[in-house]
Amino acid sequence: MQPPDLNDKVSDLDRLCSQIKKAQDFSALELGIVNIRNLSELLRSSGWKVTVTLSRRDETTEITQIEPGDTSLRNFGMCFDIGTTTLTGQLVDLNKSNVLGTKTAYNKQATFGSDVITRIIYAREPDGLEKLHCAVTQEMNRMIQELISEHNVDLNDVTCVLCAGNTTMTHLLLRIDPTYIRKEPYVPTANFIPPVRATEAGIKINPRGLLYCVAGVASYVGGDVTSGVLSCGMNDAAATLNVLIDIGTNGEIVLGHKDYFISCAASAGPAFEGSGVSCGMRATKGAIQKVKISSKDFEPAYETIAKAKPRGICGSGYIDLIAEMLKSGIIDKDGKIKPIEHKRIRQSEMGREFVLVFKENADSGSDIVVNDADIDNLKRAKAAIYSALSCLLKHMGLDFDSVPKIFIAGGFGTSVEINNAVNIGLLPDVDRNKIIFVGNSSLSGAREMLLSFEAMEQAEEIARKMTYLELSTEPAYMDEYMAALFFPHTDLTKFPSVKL
Amino acid sequence: MQPPDLNDKVSDLDRLCSQIKKAQDFSALELGIVNIRNLSELLRSSGWKVTVTLSRRDETTEITQIEPGDTSLRNFGMCFDIGTTTLTGQLVDLNKSNVLGTKTAYNKQATFGSDVITRIIYAREPDGLEKLHCAVTQEMNRMIQELISEHNVDLNDVTCVLCAGNTTMTHLLLRIDPTYIRKEPYVPTANFIPPVRATEAGIKINPRGLLYCVAGVASYVGGDVTSGVLSCGMNDAAATLNVLIDIGTNGEIVLGHKDYFISCAASAGPAFEGSGVSCGMRATKGAIQKVKISSKDFEPAYETIAKAKPRGICGSGYIDLIAEMLKSGIIDKDGKIKPIEHKRIRQSEMGREFVLVFKENADSGSDIVVNDADIDNLKRAKAAIYSALSCLLKHMGLDFDSVPKIFIAGGFGTSVEINNAVNIGLLPDVDRNKIIFVGNSSLSGAREMLLSFEAMEQAEEIARKMTYLELSTEPAYMDEYMAALFFPHTDLTKFPSVKL
Repeated sequence: MQPPDLNDKVSDLDRLCSQIKKAQDFSALELGIVNIRNLSELLRSSGWKVTVTLSRRDETTEITQIEPGDTSLRNFGMCFDIGTTTLTGQLVDLNKSNVLGTKTAYNKQATFGSDVITRIIYAREPDGLEKLHCAVTQEMNRMIQELISEHNVDLNDVTCVLCAGNTTMTHLLLRIDPTYIRKEPYVPTANFIPPVRATEAGIKINPRGLLYCVAGVASYVGGDVTSGVLSCGMNDAAATLNVLIDIGTNGEIVLGHKDYFISCAASAGPAFEGSGVSCGMRATKGAIQKVKISSKDFEPAYETIAKAKPRGICGSGYIDLIAEMLKSGIIDKDGKIKPIEHKRIRQSEMGREFVLVFKENADSGSDIVVNDADIDNLKRAKAAIYSALSCLLKHMGLDFDSVPKIFIAGGFGTSVEINNAVNIGLLPDVDRNKIIFVGNSSLSGAREMLLSFEAMEQAEEIARKMTYLELSTEPAYMDEYMAALFFPHTDLTKFPSVKL
Repeated sequence: MQPPDLNDKVSDLDRLCSQIKKAQDFSALELGIVNIRNLSELLRSSGWKVTVTLSRRDETTEITQIEPGDTSLRNFGMCFDIGTTTLTGQLVDLNKSNVLGTKTAYNKQATFGSDVITRIIYAREPDGLEKLHCAVTQEMNRMIQELISEHNVDLNDVTCVLCAGNTTMTHLLLRIDPTYIRKEPYVPTANFIPPVRATEAGIKINPRGLLYCVAGVASYVGGDVTSGVLSCGMNDAAATLNVLIDIGTNGEIVLGHKDYFISCAASAGPAFEGSGVSCGMRATKGAIQKVKISSKDFEPAYETIAKAKPRGICGSGYIDLIAEMLKSGIIDKDGKIKPIEHKRIRQSEMGREFVLVFKENADSGSDIVVNDADIDNLKRAKAAIYSALSCLLKHMGLDFDSVPKIFIAGGFGTSVEINNAVNIGLLPDVDRNKIIFVGNSSLSGAREMLLSFEAMEQAEEIARKMTYLELSTEPAYMDEYMAALFFPHTDLTKFPSVKL
């Protein structure tokens, strides 16, 4: 900037603003008094050379920070997928558009209830809402701290946080009373809350940094789904009618294309995220992600993430495991472990159990097993998802074959064996090329929005175009669900390619 | 509002916003997370009947608060004139547009320096800026507290504060470093700062209430002047070329009409505000505001505000006092008290002094006097103002007669004797009908802006149209000033109607 002189006595702030306007046009500029308080000294001590970080908030452009010299290369953001069971956070270099690091952790809110309903109830306890709020923000702050210290980033250079979560998670993150989400007529306080300052939600980044929560649709279809639809490009002009299945604690399914989306939710539980099952774990180092079982001697072979000593089983591991146990005849169609005399099959407190890894070979120091109760959990989860998809399509007068692509999202691991997912009846028996695993699409969508205002606007449009189908009032749903409580299904004509 | 049902599941927030939109159109609505956190319960417990207070901040409309039931009659604001020497605050009913109460107090910043320059220097001391900032905000908060308790107003129902002050006062109020105001090329950090949350400046009203500081023009012509110009209607389409003289610690003068304004500042000191003179006081109860002195026996007659026992002398009292002492021959043209043998005239530490009220009749418990040093202070103040006005007109190629109206603003009292103000040379010897006392025009302008966005926009336009003339670089100024250091002036041809 040109310094002032006796012929050019424009105030420091006006001088700065007109310089900013040269680089970036804005209609209204929100300055932030903290940025102005020492502006005069900052401009002079830096020789009138400063770096201004701008944020956009609706139609307003904000000055986030003003630093001496050229710091334009230091510009970072965080994106989060806030799941009921799992939190995932990424530190993103906003200049280079690349991910510097990723952290995942269980959502500590689980201490107060494993699903959204029990947490909504807990929020009414004295300090309940506060505890739920802090449980998630503390974990997020810990992730941010770890990531910035691992990547030598200054906290002040992290100027935005983008969060995708279901409606209850978004309420709890912002400390908004979620009570009426679960009471008829199931209306949330808000499906979309315009950006707030991250500190207002207890998230520690730059004190003026913004936090944006992706817009949701209804009490049981939140911003994580919107984000997933964006990430899969289902709203692209060229895209045909596709389906997205997000296999999380609350399984959400979306059907649609650029002109409309219809969504529903299925209470699947956290089993495919490795929670609520005896040896489950997230898809991280040491998780068994692939399993084969010999039909001859029931001896298993497995593969772990990062080829580490096995610590537990992640979602994709469970899919393989059940499919292989089914194929080798260890379990029946109902999912019960058969009373076979074998060193790996024994009685446990939770029915029979199958030992996948004996403790000598396990990093956990104890046997890695799967038991009747685990399999029952996984069965209910897959049945909830399959029957919801089936109902949604029926509601629209469609069948599985009318959908060109089925995107499968979720945190169960990166390398899911599609055939096995079909074999256990989690996914419908369609041309395998139609099924595309997209990993954590909620997180990828959030990252897109962190990097592009256009993506943000698209997501808001997706949320506006999406309607919600309440399955509990669909007469067919309960029948569909009951029928799906077998591996793969009661009605085998639905799974013609599956040979058991 | 209509409550939701199974056929109308719009979220609480969207429901509220569309209701607000029916009453008040907005392009962007800033909600405030605190308003959303308990919204669902508030709407239901109030039977879907709430009162929303909105604020406007540039192009954004903000929800300030949401209250159950109909509270629309409780809607208040504060306006302040923040003078270097005197603070004045008013509590205003925003529905009825009337003033509920007024408080004045000395600006406690005076402890750290009586004029803006010494305060700017003090701001560089450790914690200096903080102390100056707190000195003014504490006093403002005290005034607000007193006013709301006297008028049974809840602090949360005070949702905006409008402040007019000179550029240094505005910097200190907002805790902005004022250092470069006094350093060449005399550039302030900002002449206008868009509205901030009052809490950010330490002002205690509704936690989401806004604080707006009137736009200034330059380091030595601030928002108080803009506000005064607005209040006098000098920007009205029909107004001719007029002059406003604001007789404060920093005396400011503006000349102009709707198309342009030119301003200058004269360092007058606080004498006419009753500060820095031995028995001076503000124009409040007990202040001597009118004086007559018999030319025969030098016996004075006086009138006090509220007819109370005299406590001191306010600005208008000093104008009368000097004019009468001059007329009766107690002082000479130089302002020195003559060595007359009289019970009221005696030697003091500050030269001779004249006893206006003996302690028996004074509420203060000591004699009320005026001494040589006091008169010298007042003389310098009037000389600064007269010579500045004279220079400004000369600079524009005008003389006193070319100005149809001269507005005189300031806190020296409500009933100034115009002839006396001319007789002592404070005001030019023009047709007395041209001279209009307007009282605290800075405060009246601020009140107009508190009640009208149009007035606010007009004030911003006035500030944009105003230029600043630096008197210290005007060759004629020092000569003019020296020539004015007499009562009424060295050159008596300038005061033809004044008979001494």
